[in-house]
Amino acid sequence: MTTTRELGLPSISPQQGLPDEVEIWEVAPRDGLQAEKTLLNVDTKVELIERLARAGAPVIEVGSFVRADRVPQMADSAEVFQRVKDLSPRTPVLVPNMRGYELALAAGATDIAVFLSVTESFSEANLGAPRERMEPIVEAVVERAAIDGVRVRGYLSMVFGDPWEGHVDTAEVVRLATAMRSWGIADLSLGDTIGVATPGQVKQTLRALVGAGIPISSLALHMHDTYGMALANVYAGLEEGVRIFDAAAAGVGGCPFANSATGNLATDDLVWMLTGLGIQTGIDPDALTETSAWLSQALGKPTTSRVARSLTR
Amino acid sequence: MTTTRELGLPSISPQQGLPDEVEIWEVAPRDGLQAEKTLLNVDTKVELIERLARAGAPVIEVGSFVRADRVPQMADSAEVFQRVKDLSPRTPVLVPNMRGYELALAAGATDIAVFLSVTESFSEANLGAPRERMEPIVEAVVERAAIDGVRVRGYLSMVFGDPWEGHVDTAEVVRLATAMRSWGIADLSLGDTIGVATPGQVKQTLRALVGAGIPISSLALHMHDTYGMALANVYAGLEEGVRIFDAAAAGVGGCPFANSATGNLATDDLVWMLTGLGIQTGIDPDALTETSAWLSQALGKPTTSRVARSLTR
Repeated sequence: MTTTRELGLPSISPQQGLPDEVEIWEVAPRDGLQAEKTLLNVDTKVELIERLARAGAPVIEVGSFVRADRVPQMADSAEVFQRVKDLSPRTPVLVPNMRGYELALAAGATDIAVFLSVTESFSEANLGAPRERMEPIVEAVVERAAIDGVRVRGYLSMVFGDPWEGHVDTAEVVRLATAMRSWGIADLSLGDTIGVATPGQVKQTLRALVGAGIPISSLALHMHDTYGMALANVYAGLEEGVRIFDAAAAGVGGCPFANSATGNLATDDLVWMLTGLGIQTGIDPDALTETSAWLSQALGKPTTSRVARSLTR
Repeated sequence: MTTTRELGLPSISPQQGLPDEVEIWEVAPRDGLQAEKTLLNVDTKVELIERLARAGAPVIEVGSFVRADRVPQMADSAEVFQRVKDLSPRTPVLVPNMRGYELALAAGATDIAVFLSVTESFSEANLGAPRERMEPIVEAVVERAAIDGVRVRGYLSMVFGDPWEGHVDTAEVVRLATAMRSWGIADLSLGDTIGVATPGQVKQTLRALVGAGIPISSLALHMHDTYGMALANVYAGLEEGVRIFDAAAAGVGGCPFANSATGNLATDDLVWMLTGLGIQTGIDPDALTETSAWLSQALGKPTTSRVARSLTR
């Protein structure tokens, strides 16, 4: 049977006020793989990043300089990084602290991401330290990065809800985002780590941040699809002016602290919706579908992307 | 582990301009089951409808008076209808033509739904006749229903794309909707039968219909989740003023003519998003989750609802 895509579907219906293009920050090789039990070797990771780059992904987060005993999947990030750093316009890596920063710098990184939790519980569980201890650690990394001319993105985790604390106060999100901006982090990614955001909350949170003087152009949305809300949340974000969205091919990943088998928003599904809205991403949907199928096979698990499932059936 | 719902998640964040309540038109017993291969017996169907009614579903489409050789799952609709008709405030049944109408009337139905395809190809494939032959057939049913005091909803199929023709012209949707309104059908449900709609297209189509004089209050959205777009499309519809949404518990169903294993928007996922938006439906989420799990088990297939998968894992 002819696929919907061969039939020219989805129909292209741009919406007034939405942009002509957005930037997708591909996180499958890092946020995706780090939560997967199947360990991939360096060659496979490099092939994944090569495929994503060939598909047109403009930014690919390629690894993480965290403790190998805590995140075994990321133990070989230095080697992966060195093999892929020239494949894509941007190949950022994640660093949790100064030790990670130095390892990343030694590997030749010039583009990093740091992360902090909005909630106390997740800071303790994921970073192993309370927020008041983590914040100066990250601030020091950002100061060093400025001196070294290294570009920095800041991730905020548990922006829309927390698996221990439940509701998250938007004022706390604004406080942390404002602090990170004051240290010199230009770009922030708002993480719905357990996938509990709904569209009204996305708009409300974005408005609170913009109201506190943070430009919407500096904000990215990092939605997980645990409860199927990710695309509705992205659409709400688009309407508020967000132009950067994180996603992972085949929807790989997931949060080990969330009650869920599902992970990141699948890049496949995001590109499908954006295509329908007439919004360019630079990503070739067919090459992405192929990469996504290849990745699912490498991990030995079915894709969580509805687009991938429907197109490859 | 505590479930997100026990933690009070999703957080309730109403959005200005959206309503306090909407009506969910539950279609699992009809549109859902008719596409499922596993045949359920009358007792199981009755139990499904009882459970949905107890969970608070305000409208439950309980069966279809179509040819048993074409849709075996619906062969016992008269018996099912008679056993459930007093369980819920509204228990409409689907009728394709005058023969079906008479069977429905004989069973005691006072609330029916008729259907027509926007595209020629689907009319031929699903109804077995071209549109110009089907339209007078349905018009005659609507005229009879008016005389008999029977309430009528009209379904439009393939509103946003067609598996043979690809793109669907919005003018054709407006033409058919206007015709159906002129016959006396007050309420119309716009079907994304193969799940290819995207949010800008939903808004564009709704505006075209409203521009042609059709009140938004008379329009329902019937989204399939084939490509994961259903909730983003519902959210777009909410923003345009739609207040009636079709959905099926556990996301049962699917279109036999679409390249897909996935079916209707899962009521579970719809209720989750609406809860986050502070919109009432009268449906108890816990009772729905339980019913949805029970239905998946009765059909021997995994739920397609992301909420159900995450909550019952």
